[in-house]
Amino acid sequence: MNGTFSDSFRADLRDLMRWRRDVRRFRTDPIEAAVLNRCLDAFSLAPSVGLSQPWRVIKVTSDQARAAAIANFMAANSDALAGYCDEKARLYAGLKLSGMCEAPIHLAVFCDDATTKGTQLGARTMPETRAYSVVSAITQFWLLARAEGLGVGWVSILDPARLCQDLQVSPDWRLIGYLCVGLPETLDDTPELERAGWEIRDNTLWMESR
Amino acid sequence: MNGTFSDSFRADLRDLMRWRRDVRRFRTDPIEAAVLNRCLDAFSLAPSVGLSQPWRVIKVTSDQARAAAIANFMAANSDALAGYCDEKARLYAGLKLSGMCEAPIHLAVFCDDATTKGTQLGARTMPETRAYSVVSAITQFWLLARAEGLGVGWVSILDPARLCQDLQVSPDWRLIGYLCVGLPETLDDTPELERAGWEIRDNTLWMESR
Repeated sequence: MNGTFSDSFRADLRDLMRWRRDVRRFRTDPIEAAVLNRCLDAFSLAPSVGLSQPWRVIKVTSDQARAAAIANFMAANSDALAGYCDEKARLYAGLKLSGMCEAPIHLAVFCDDATTKGTQLGARTMPETRAYSVVSAITQFWLLARAEGLGVGWVSILDPARLCQDLQVSPDWRLIGYLCVGLPETLDDTPELERAGWEIRDNTLWMESR
Repeated sequence: MNGTFSDSFRADLRDLMRWRRDVRRFRTDPIEAAVLNRCLDAFSLAPSVGLSQPWRVIKVTSDQARAAAIANFMAANSDALAGYCDEKARLYAGLKLSGMCEAPIHLAVFCDDATTKGTQLGARTMPETRAYSVVSAITQFWLLARAEGLGVGWVSILDPARLCQDLQVSPDWRLIGYLCVGLPETLDDTPELERAGWEIRDNTLWMESR
């Protein structure tokens, strides 16, 4: 391998992106540790501002911690439903927005804003790039997991302060993403929100600067 | 293609992540529009909170807009250098931190925080997930570009407010990343900051919740 890639690899990579979904319907089967560990490498291989590698990944394994995260989601989701009216409220109430009860693996991914790694390079002007580095790592994890046959669902309907408190993490850590991981019930190349009639996808267009 | 992937694809995908670099040394050769357009598809295929697709991509093409961005970087980089002392200042001064002068393509990527697409789903509790969706799209673009033989460099040593003003974008748009794109001078599987002795990479470890 010399850092060049074939047409057939490129076609498969596009297919991977096409079949990557936000999964909310999981089988409860356990996931082999070796498979999950291979996916974890996506973090170490991710770009990070100033090589600061600010990601911190917690496997949420205890019954107590999982139950606290699920209760957090349920409260936030109920509040969110109250913000919609009429048809949109009816539609929202029918959406399945997290697979937390079924997914065998829960990962809480944080950004350590107090890290000294990278000595602030690139993060003085745009400190938010530390959080962005964590998002890049999560995106790579998502793709690698999908290539391994796993589904990932990113739950953002959560009170992040409450989650940090429940997991007793350092006050310098900020929640970036709460991920459910497991075998998906089905594969699909269309987002569940599109199939449910919530929103459709547009193509992205370039705009030109003046 | 049915959404399943082979061992050899997975091995190549890990190699892609291994050879993806933050590139600052570009050849000035122009890039074919068709190649760049294929990479743009990475945006439409990216995950986004509530299917909000909040990314807005500007090709910075005019001499005036490019010059303003380069001047912005130079001022921010000079300020950043003043924040280091002794050996670290000497090392910082010797780093090449942007390839803006040579890269044939400049992309300014924004998040439209005022978009109504997705009707706020998932973004009420964590509104920052809109910006994170844009970062996911950039990460996919980076990987697809690398698979096409292109290098991408993310410049974060910039004053984002000044850049938004110079490009005259909507006040609702927030700069997420300023990207240089072009053919890299060389391929490498080790980050330039590691080769230059600024920082080293660590492996990522799981932590367990209590």
